[in-house]
Amino acid sequence: MPVRTVDVGLDDRSYSIFIGPNALASLGNHCAGLQLGRRCAVISDHTVARRYGKRAMASLQAAGFLPALLTVPPGEASKGLKCLQACYDQLAAQRLDRRSFIVALGGGVVGDLAGFVAATYLRGIAFVQVPTTLLAQVDSSVGGKVGINLKAGKNLVGAFHQPRLVLCDLSALNSLPAREFRAGLAEVIKYGIIYDATFFGRLESQLPKLLRRDKRLLMDVVARCCEIKADVVRQDETETGLRAILNFGHTIGHAIEAACGYGAYLHGEAISIGQVAAARLSAELCGLPVADARRIENLFVRAGLPASIKLTSVRRAKVLGAMRLDKKVSGDEIKFVLARRIGEVQFGIPVNAKSIERALCGLARASTLSS
Amino acid sequence: MPVRTVDVGLDDRSYSIFIGPNALASLGNHCAGLQLGRRCAVISDHTVARRYGKRAMASLQAAGFLPALLTVPPGEASKGLKCLQACYDQLAAQRLDRRSFIVALGGGVVGDLAGFVAATYLRGIAFVQVPTTLLAQVDSSVGGKVGINLKAGKNLVGAFHQPRLVLCDLSALNSLPAREFRAGLAEVIKYGIIYDATFFGRLESQLPKLLRRDKRLLMDVVARCCEIKADVVRQDETETGLRAILNFGHTIGHAIEAACGYGAYLHGEAISIGQVAAARLSAELCGLPVADARRIENLFVRAGLPASIKLTSVRRAKVLGAMRLDKKVSGDEIKFVLARRIGEVQFGIPVNAKSIERALCGLARASTLSS
Repeated sequence: MPVRTVDVGLDDRSYSIFIGPNALASLGNHCAGLQLGRRCAVISDHTVARRYGKRAMASLQAAGFLPALLTVPPGEASKGLKCLQACYDQLAAQRLDRRSFIVALGGGVVGDLAGFVAATYLRGIAFVQVPTTLLAQVDSSVGGKVGINLKAGKNLVGAFHQPRLVLCDLSALNSLPAREFRAGLAEVIKYGIIYDATFFGRLESQLPKLLRRDKRLLMDVVARCCEIKADVVRQDETETGLRAILNFGHTIGHAIEAACGYGAYLHGEAISIGQVAAARLSAELCGLPVADARRIENLFVRAGLPASIKLTSVRRAKVLGAMRLDKKVSGDEIKFVLARRIGEVQFGIPVNAKSIERALCGLARASTLSS
Repeated sequence: MPVRTVDVGLDDRSYSIFIGPNALASLGNHCAGLQLGRRCAVISDHTVARRYGKRAMASLQAAGFLPALLTVPPGEASKGLKCLQACYDQLAAQRLDRRSFIVALGGGVVGDLAGFVAATYLRGIAFVQVPTTLLAQVDSSVGGKVGINLKAGKNLVGAFHQPRLVLCDLSALNSLPAREFRAGLAEVIKYGIIYDATFFGRLESQLPKLLRRDKRLLMDVVARCCEIKADVVRQDETETGLRAILNFGHTIGHAIEAACGYGAYLHGEAISIGQVAAARLSAELCGLPVADARRIENLFVRAGLPASIKLTSVRRAKVLGAMRLDKKVSGDEIKFVLARRIGEVQFGIPVNAKSIERALCGLARASTLSS
């Protein structure tokens, strides 16, 4: 199976995404093409490092690099200031300099953390993304958003720092626990909703094959998602407008993660609930046909993802509070990305708290979603 | 006395520096011209906040803003991850959003810390510099370098994030302790050495008046320093080349600060030693006339600044070790900015450890500086 390449065109910050089985073996060679220094650091989590760390290090060493391996505990809690400090201190101890680079080997947590380390260490050094989860391959490794969480909310601290290359090893998806694979599908489905109705239809018809992790289909799916993301990021790198559509379902999703404690829901699960709620709001406020809102909900459910959440009144207040802290809030309005139809969304639509609550609990208006 | 304006031309990141007595009173009006949101945070240290906090808050409030005041302890120790976290948490508690902005009210420590907070909070929000020390007015508030220290070295973590405006209140310089004022002169003298022999000559002849803090002379001096810095930054914003000349004396200076513990020497004192050492190295390696190296040393000494440092062998090893960690090190060479003559420097000159040690201890070669 040949390697697929998707180019992200961003002037002097352009880079390529390489997608293929066993892509990890070519890490060193790809890095050698970047004209950087010999010293580098691979940042990973304990679980991923145990499985792929040696291969990554060997590939880099074979290409003449002097890599150091830095690991953090797996899980969202590592995307915070404590692990950030540990990374900085280790980079200083390893004497990385301005020509050195960082390889992020792992899922979204590792990519966001390592990317933020790279964005800020010595005022910014180069970095390479080697995403090992479906979610990271189709979403977080592409586009240059990097950052860490605060107690008050996810990704409240960060930067725009584009990687120099992205290497998606499809073989890594084999070892992914089912729950994590499904969580990745939440972002895959998102691309259909926001940008490509044909792709959405294909996901509906080929979901069983996708859930079996068919390699050829996975390559097509990962490549299409990366193409869409590259297309959006190319048009609006720093999210002054269009890029907001990538946040479909995320305002609610992030609030759920913050209010329920990071880790209770995987990011993909939280944004699954968020996207289903956004579909309900879209039907209520944006002209999305009710039948399409149902198709959206059904696809998430068939993918094994949650479509609603039961909230005590205390927790509901927490979710709404967390939403107000979201970066997408401007002034005192909460603005949403909503769908006019599958494949076409609008951003910046103000939504009031009552509607959000209703959509969140699956209590849609009688006129829209009840049959 | 009219306000002086220096423009920093950086395309869509251009901004103005306003220099004048009582400039702080116009903070709110200047900010109103920036078209930002109403919420903002003034970050300062306890000492500066006690003296100028109320005036800054009142000016912002009178212009319709909703400022919050955040203070950190005075001193270099606040430029670290602990205070960074405290700032982030308070910005989240104050619900600053993407249209909000940060005002850095204080010296270099506050400006660098608050600027880095602004560079990274919500992936970057606007910020305004209100430098209250001579060093911050002529150097650290202009040019967009922001950052924090690690235990391993100064400014090892940071970003390039230009302020939206800089407001230099000359009246604030009256209240500066003599030691801090003199430390600021170390950066002032630097501009003469690296860029403007006439300015250097003027400093030599007018030093007594400058040490008396004559307002008119101070305005001229601050404006000329800002012009030179703006000129250099305009040509090389992210230090790929020329901007390195601003680091004259800094490689050694930073290492002294790191090795002796932050606070033992003020930054200006450390770079005074560093610049005198760099002048000695320049005479040895770069053709600087010996008489000019003496003029340089004399001016620092007349300004009440240290020209050399006594080091135990343990500490000397520490200084050299810290130098290797400096951001300006590439590969295994330590590169220096050295002067060919007063007003003209070269960057990227490799210097070996032996020469550095000699220069540091004031033990210049018989052939150069001994009379």
